[in-house]
Amino acid sequence: MKERLILISNDDGIASKGIDTLIRIAQPYGKLVVVAPVNAQSGKSHSVSLTTPIRYEIRHSSKNLEKYVLYGTPVDCVKGALTKILPRKPDLMLSGINHGSNSAISVVYSGTMGAAIEASFYGIPSIGLSIITHDADADFETIEKTAPALIEKVLEHGLPNQVSLNVNYPVTTPQEFKGFKICTQTKSYWYEDFEETTDRFGNIAYYQRGHIINMEPDNPDCDENALAENYAAIVPVRADFTEYKLINELKNWNL
Amino acid sequence: MKERLILISNDDGIASKGIDTLIRIAQPYGKLVVVAPVNAQSGKSHSVSLTTPIRYEIRHSSKNLEKYVLYGTPVDCVKGALTKILPRKPDLMLSGINHGSNSAISVVYSGTMGAAIEASFYGIPSIGLSIITHDADADFETIEKTAPALIEKVLEHGLPNQVSLNVNYPVTTPQEFKGFKICTQTKSYWYEDFEETTDRFGNIAYYQRGHIINMEPDNPDCDENALAENYAAIVPVRADFTEYKLINELKNWNL
Repeated sequence: MKERLILISNDDGIASKGIDTLIRIAQPYGKLVVVAPVNAQSGKSHSVSLTTPIRYEIRHSSKNLEKYVLYGTPVDCVKGALTKILPRKPDLMLSGINHGSNSAISVVYSGTMGAAIEASFYGIPSIGLSIITHDADADFETIEKTAPALIEKVLEHGLPNQVSLNVNYPVTTPQEFKGFKICTQTKSYWYEDFEETTDRFGNIAYYQRGHIINMEPDNPDCDENALAENYAAIVPVRADFTEYKLINELKNWNL
Repeated sequence: MKERLILISNDDGIASKGIDTLIRIAQPYGKLVVVAPVNAQSGKSHSVSLTTPIRYEIRHSSKNLEKYVLYGTPVDCVKGALTKILPRKPDLMLSGINHGSNSAISVVYSGTMGAAIEASFYGIPSIGLSIITHDADADFETIEKTAPALIEKVLEHGLPNQVSLNVNYPVTTPQEFKGFKICTQTKSYWYEDFEETTDRFGNIAYYQRGHIINMEPDNPDCDENALAENYAAIVPVRADFTEYKLINELKNWNL
């Protein structure tokens, strides 16, 4: 029987606690090939390096685990893995565990989900995993205990072509954890609150701060609200931006 | 009567022919404020600068036109414009004209559409415009002649909250141009063909090449195929990644 091949990436970079945890969670399920950014890549969304070449270096090789660092974005990591590093298409792709929420509209800005979505384009069942704290030393105990059941379900059922899962975990103990909830992406946007700073040349510059504005606070089935109830929110994701219900109205514009 | 306020951005940067053309097209419709990246930002998708501060500089100011350059991504430009530069929420946002196609799955990688989608989050009617050639000296005559009708329709009808338009133009003369077609985003993915190069330290690195694989070559209503017929393809866009039709199946997994 062919050994299962699993690709792992993230956007916090190779040195993060989240990816180490994910490697530990995934190890029972097959041979792991980790291709992760050498630097942190938060907020890189689905960006790709189009005008600069990308390169990678091997950092670890043992029977069931290879680790590469790649000089590029999370999506570059997936493209590099599929085009140059992996011996064949992997059976599963895991991205994360991201330090920080990728629920609601944050999925659009997320490098973690960029990588998972990219892998899904090639028919690879893919899961992006995040915990909703930016703490670099986040407590992943609940995820370590519960993510294996999710991975096993995905391996058992597969996922439709070009569909991935966006999984966000609350910050909670295993005792307080309510389990998984299948959700929709919360309608929302980011309220911006720029913080003024000054660079070394005296130029005024701004750090982007802010918070999510939840446009459906009373919907129990959207991911943001499930997280507030201590559920891990699972949103099935397809990168089809078409707003189908506007098609007919636009046709009536008679352009 | 309040003067109409129009925000313009792009991903090719302030110095591109595409944005100059768009400024010329938009000038009859109101006061223009251009906030564009100082550098080319192709392939930056919806990325935001989260760990480095952004800054901007004014480069031009006259009665009906202000131009700013911003050190950041296209989405940073929109956030900077809305948070710091504009006196109020604009009535319209235009992004482009991009040198290069943003049809099919390319919408996901597109900084041009990243900016338009970001503006739509705040209820601003937004249009991303692209021509399907990377030629820096592209011929925009067809767009100059036909985009005003589209802009006028958007100003007349508006767009639903958080919906923008992704408009791609073929490379065609006004005579061969077939007009606008309302389309869906073509199901597709990018076939990768890495080109090996060597950096100055002797490291092997790769430029990402490749081409779109069209998964629905027989669908006359998707954008890629409309473009092949010399139509300009208009796809209404909402950044909701939820794959609604998988929700019930996932619930049956009994996680």
